[in-house]
Amino acid sequence: MSASRIGQILPSRSVSVLKGGNVWFFGGGAQDPAGYLVSGVRSMLIPSQLSPFPPQNIARSGVSERRRGLAQEKMTENGVFSRDKVLTIDTMNPTVKNVEYAVRGPIVQRAMQIEKELREGVKKPFTEVIKANIGDAHAMGQQPITFFRQVLALCSYPELLNENMFPEDAKNRARRILQACGGGSVGAYSASQGIDCVRQDVARYIERRDGGVPCDPDNVYLTTGASDGIVTMLKLLVCGEGASRTGVMISIPQYPLYSAALAELGAVQVNYYLNEEKCWSMDLSELESSLAEARKHCNPKALCIINPGNPTGQVQSRQCIEGVIRFAAKERLFLMADEVYQDNVYAEGCQFHSFKKVLFELGPEYSDNVELASFHSTSKCYMGECGFRGGYMEVINMDAEVQAQLSKLVSVRLCPPVPGQALMDLVVNSPQPGEPSHITFMKALGQAPDMFYCMKLLEETGICLVPGSGFGQKDGTYHFRMTILPPTDKLKILLAKVKEFHQKFTQQYS
Amino acid sequence: MSASRIGQILPSRSVSVLKGGNVWFFGGGAQDPAGYLVSGVRSMLIPSQLSPFPPQNIARSGVSERRRGLAQEKMTENGVFSRDKVLTIDTMNPTVKNVEYAVRGPIVQRAMQIEKELREGVKKPFTEVIKANIGDAHAMGQQPITFFRQVLALCSYPELLNENMFPEDAKNRARRILQACGGGSVGAYSASQGIDCVRQDVARYIERRDGGVPCDPDNVYLTTGASDGIVTMLKLLVCGEGASRTGVMISIPQYPLYSAALAELGAVQVNYYLNEEKCWSMDLSELESSLAEARKHCNPKALCIINPGNPTGQVQSRQCIEGVIRFAAKERLFLMADEVYQDNVYAEGCQFHSFKKVLFELGPEYSDNVELASFHSTSKCYMGECGFRGGYMEVINMDAEVQAQLSKLVSVRLCPPVPGQALMDLVVNSPQPGEPSHITFMKALGQAPDMFYCMKLLEETGICLVPGSGFGQKDGTYHFRMTILPPTDKLKILLAKVKEFHQKFTQQYS
Repeated sequence: MSASRIGQILPSRSVSVLKGGNVWFFGGGAQDPAGYLVSGVRSMLIPSQLSPFPPQNIARSGVSERRRGLAQEKMTENGVFSRDKVLTIDTMNPTVKNVEYAVRGPIVQRAMQIEKELREGVKKPFTEVIKANIGDAHAMGQQPITFFRQVLALCSYPELLNENMFPEDAKNRARRILQACGGGSVGAYSASQGIDCVRQDVARYIERRDGGVPCDPDNVYLTTGASDGIVTMLKLLVCGEGASRTGVMISIPQYPLYSAALAELGAVQVNYYLNEEKCWSMDLSELESSLAEARKHCNPKALCIINPGNPTGQVQSRQCIEGVIRFAAKERLFLMADEVYQDNVYAEGCQFHSFKKVLFELGPEYSDNVELASFHSTSKCYMGECGFRGGYMEVINMDAEVQAQLSKLVSVRLCPPVPGQALMDLVVNSPQPGEPSHITFMKALGQAPDMFYCMKLLEETGICLVPGSGFGQKDGTYHFRMTILPPTDKLKILLAKVKEFHQKFTQQYS
Repeated sequence: MSASRIGQILPSRSVSVLKGGNVWFFGGGAQDPAGYLVSGVRSMLIPSQLSPFPPQNIARSGVSERRRGLAQEKMTENGVFSRDKVLTIDTMNPTVKNVEYAVRGPIVQRAMQIEKELREGVKKPFTEVIKANIGDAHAMGQQPITFFRQVLALCSYPELLNENMFPEDAKNRARRILQACGGGSVGAYSASQGIDCVRQDVARYIERRDGGVPCDPDNVYLTTGASDGIVTMLKLLVCGEGASRTGVMISIPQYPLYSAALAELGAVQVNYYLNEEKCWSMDLSELESSLAEARKHCNPKALCIINPGNPTGQVQSRQCIEGVIRFAAKERLFLMADEVYQDNVYAEGCQFHSFKKVLFELGPEYSDNVELASFHSTSKCYMGECGFRGGYMEVINMDAEVQAQLSKLVSVRLCPPVPGQALMDLVVNSPQPGEPSHITFMKALGQAPDMFYCMKLLEETGICLVPGSGFGQKDGTYHFRMTILPPTDKLKILLAKVKEFHQKFTQQYS
């Protein structure tokens, strides 16, 4: 072994290559300082105080007889031995590596870099980055609803209840929420399932929404945003190995939370494609063929639907939902209905139908049997309060024993954030008539290309979109997803920029 | 097959047993209504409109040739066929079933029932339930810190910035937090890792706490309470199957979040026992023997320490921590230091030493190598703000690729609750001198028995504790865990009651 070869293994500062090939180096063997023979090198002394690391992995080097773990040791800048980590990309949980989340992926990371570059004075063909990659209404300048924020301020600092500056209805709402909190403080843990009176309000809201279909507050679970509820439900569902591994059907395109959660749980992602030619509608024949194919290699147990769609923005017809429910009943699939955009329907002639309502209209053969979990959030709708991480899920026809397990599972995380629960209450128990409210719009456009297109668009215009590949799309088709939350003025500029870019792009690359 | 045998399978209302053995029943075959022959029963007609459920499971009955899935169908009260669920205790994720969480287990559930019974006028030998099962300071009447709540109210409803009722320092703090929020609103999503300026404040806090040991804000992740961070770290660590399955060393007694999370992740829980005879201290020899034993059947990769201890309340000496770090280095274990009670140390002569500080004092061989994640929370300390679900974790010496995976993983849940982030900022960037603050005390007592004892105590006195078995204890020893957050007056009553009960109990059962 030459000195330079040793130098690669043993960083220079701690290695003295002596005449005759003697090498002294620091490292290894805290408990048993000793000399080890490295082939071609006579001896090494390992002073114990500098060497916390014991013999371990012997398999990594071609050196025949050597200090175990030697190749794992590297010299850091300040001349100290550094060793391979316990937790590395090779030893970490492989399911986490499979997780992808396009909404905050490389395009968004580059956008943040560009923002930094702009702040540092780097010249760009634009002066600001416009983020249309995520449905974050307030970040785009939407103002919060006054009533909601008044109640939240009162809950945070109840001394304000003594002030005259707040309307009585806001005070009453705050008093009611505080009374339901342990010690009258939003700083106390709530019940793990959520504050009782909030769950009752959610149940009444659901009943109103669904024309009187009953809702039991015991079936309502408050969550840390809808994501939390969705992941919790998937966690209950997923089991088995190999061909009996749980499969979960998700739309393509989908919101990437689903693919990310399924990857993390090691479940089989079963894709069904939305029909772009028919405004991204769901085809039963596609569901059937997707399921038949999936059954060859896994055990499909659940069907996820995002309605109104994300990123596609389609609103399912009542007839379509009925078909999906019949399909789930026939094929024995647990239904998961992501309905967080239920209040974001604006197109003329379009109407939101909840899966639960349609389920009950199909009669007791369905309403007594089909298992359904439905999800909602404070982050979307007209309030767009993303930062509070409020949400709920309702479970219908869940097996009682499973529901007990669900209740146990959510208790491990103690409770969802209480301010988010309070906000959920305000959303479902909406402010007095006359209170201002804004409907925000959330819809995705189905247009042309992908990562390259989006990166180029970002670099040239500062507009940050998400490539369609992060949501899934048919081979050979390309999309991007943009949220259209910026204020009208900004939106006009944004759209003009996109238009111009798009024309140039298609000219250049077609 | 006799009619009664059929009756067991086919609920009575829908079954007409005709002379000669004809049975007509409803159920099955939505897509292909057809007659099926049941052995000993001539024929069945399945009207399609009443039967959404197709042939499926054939294996559950002794009937030789029969409608597939028949045994899964039951009659509900309103005369409709109900079918076995898709998601049952047998088909659900088995790892979830293994989760146990004593802090909110059967004792607490019974306590909630008893509270309801009291409200309904049921006579008990007590008039209220005192909950000493969970560290929920505000629920026990502790008042929130005014300064914190003023800032939170200002953040929730920034119009209050124009009022004269708030001190300038509170306003300045709120302005700073709001400026760091998208669109100046706590209703916007933050960066997934947490708001930049909050992470910077956390980093400076850690540096002050640790006497100048540097902290990089990029290594700080804001979390939804400490639980979130702990589960996320465990998620990164766990992999492998059988004998190479990841093992995680946890203290016994432990805080049940650990056992629950490990069960859910399917990791191997490797117990090491705290030494009750030495005030629940950690013995290195116990660590060594526990690890040696574990290596026979799994791959131990991480060592979790709760310091100050929960439920045991011990505070580790500097010497002990040094030993643990040397042990982790020698044995190549990833260290997880749960330090949420770091500000709850009150015994004379006791001092909190952070694992990070001791790690750095051991010199670069350790500080450049040993991987450590440390956790903190807004729920404990003097503020006890549990409901906001604020917290952070700091990772040290984490492999860069793994840290990129961590950043990706946390992005899937978008962000921790922003009000909790704001609160974390206030905690680490504490109020101006002169601001009121209270130190709450959180310590567990190590005394006598278990579930029976606790249930009896609850039934007779209304005091709700947690049996030691939920945290783990040596065979043949019994403990309970109580939090001592009630105000002094109530605490005196509580302790007097416990004393009286205990004397009676030991008299009766010894």
